[in-house]
Amino acid sequence: MVGAADLFQTGLQETGQAVEALLERLLDNAALKGETTRPARLLAAMRHGALGGGKRLRPFLLIESARLCGASPDAALLAGAALELVHCYSLVHDDLPAMDDDDLRRGRPTVHKVYDDAMAILAGDALLTLAFDVMSRPEIHADPTVRLELVIGLARASGLGGMAGGQALDLEAEGRYETDRKPLTLSEADIRQLQAMKTGALLLYAVEAGGILGRADQTKRTALTAYGRAVGAAFQIADDILDVEADTATLGKEAGKDADRGKGTLVQRLGLDAAKAERDRLARTALEALSSFGSDADILRTTARFIVSRGH
Amino acid sequence: MVGAADLFQTGLQETGQAVEALLERLLDNAALKGETTRPARLLAAMRHGALGGGKRLRPFLLIESARLCGASPDAALLAGAALELVHCYSLVHDDLPAMDDDDLRRGRPTVHKVYDDAMAILAGDALLTLAFDVMSRPEIHADPTVRLELVIGLARASGLGGMAGGQALDLEAEGRYETDRKPLTLSEADIRQLQAMKTGALLLYAVEAGGILGRADQTKRTALTAYGRAVGAAFQIADDILDVEADTATLGKEAGKDADRGKGTLVQRLGLDAAKAERDRLARTALEALSSFGSDADILRTTARFIVSRGH
Repeated sequence: MVGAADLFQTGLQETGQAVEALLERLLDNAALKGETTRPARLLAAMRHGALGGGKRLRPFLLIESARLCGASPDAALLAGAALELVHCYSLVHDDLPAMDDDDLRRGRPTVHKVYDDAMAILAGDALLTLAFDVMSRPEIHADPTVRLELVIGLARASGLGGMAGGQALDLEAEGRYETDRKPLTLSEADIRQLQAMKTGALLLYAVEAGGILGRADQTKRTALTAYGRAVGAAFQIADDILDVEADTATLGKEAGKDADRGKGTLVQRLGLDAAKAERDRLARTALEALSSFGSDADILRTTARFIVSRGH
Repeated sequence: MVGAADLFQTGLQETGQAVEALLERLLDNAALKGETTRPARLLAAMRHGALGGGKRLRPFLLIESARLCGASPDAALLAGAALELVHCYSLVHDDLPAMDDDDLRRGRPTVHKVYDDAMAILAGDALLTLAFDVMSRPEIHADPTVRLELVIGLARASGLGGMAGGQALDLEAEGRYETDRKPLTLSEADIRQLQAMKTGALLLYAVEAGGILGRADQTKRTALTAYGRAVGAAFQIADDILDVEADTATLGKEAGKDADRGKGTLVQRLGLDAAKAERDRLARTALEALSSFGSDADILRTTARFIVSRGH
């Protein structure tokens, strides 16, 4: 007998392969209408930043939410790839020496290590730009208002008032802008808001985009938003716990770096045990949000459990 | 009697003020639907990069092309502001130490000098992201397919196959990726392609976007494309000539820097006199492209003349 966890793992893997294949096609060297040519070095840097790794969790959440709302799987896959381009751009820029200064990502050298800072900046820029191109394409949805809702939602989840803003708050939380060098003390509410922006916004968007694509009614959308918010918050706490507990070999990036920098995490603010309890509480909240759905939502339920229990 | 040149100067100034006021509103601290909050430091860095300077030539070209095609001036102004956000993001990123390493822009310290590299990277990212948000808004055009055409066009003009790709080629043209340090020799065709991408694509898009907004027929669109292509190419040659001839005080940025870096410009490839002749030839091409239009296109004609004759 095949359990929900096995189905989930198989689905996550299959979606990951489909996303990879689609990103590979989106990042080939054929110039599209409106493009002049695709310069080889920049394209290679973009491919390094986007291909060959990652769980593709955001596309998976988008696709499974879309499926729950009756949207076309092919359209959801393309929208998921557009979303993943935004996630990949953010990793390329966050890894830069001027930002988090990481040399390793998914066990491989980061884009700026393989190329240089300039090419990494441009590769991130171009991945972000391509995301909006892809999300606007007719294959996403026949109704143009649906595509525009997706585009605006993506922009707001990832920009000043979302992911980029969260990264800015995170840099401030390090204390790098405190002229007297005294450590910054963030309140629990500050940390929650920072994390809701930095990682939460894009995970929430993944789930909401599924509802937009499936033209879900308001009840479903409200449920998906509650689920997405809880899952997004739980993800970041789980990540921070992992960062404290894991070693470099398991994680594929330099472990303990976030703690070294004195960043504001709930692990630091509340302690490890309380952070774990909060992570588990959020996972329950995510499951409760799906209570009006039947077994159709089992994959999203398993995803919530996976997010809090993953080892890497 | 008021001549075309005076009308043009007045129009350019008035449009510049309207764009400034609109950017000021787009960059206020009120979070929009879908945004969590707008972090103060990142917002300030974005405002430094986008407000208080520049001729706003791209919005002007968009608005005047839109006017020629009968589009609403208010809608064109908003689309012009979205386009200007992309231009401003590109300046913030291009000025970074890892890229062109400029400390001055429009006579003021660049964003990374006032803030730091991290905040400048994020400010550029968030300006780019905001551009797609603004271009997708209902106020741009009642018909969503028009907005989507504008969004896709903007993405392709500014991404891998456009402006970002052109900047990548320009970095390669400096020879920074040549391991044996021998100077790179670009053909005239290489330089033209590089420039068509780096600066030409966004200027061409400005003009084409006016046609899209005004739902111009194919004849008008073809004429506008020919005009935009010629104006874009002339602009970059004029800029390169200016860079050789101007001094720092007049220009508000460090003069002669591009030449110092050995970048591929047509001034270097063809010599100053031949470059000037080519610039003037392109201006004539731009005027010829408008021959089917009446006096309605006089402002675009004056713009072409301005672009080749400007002192700064």
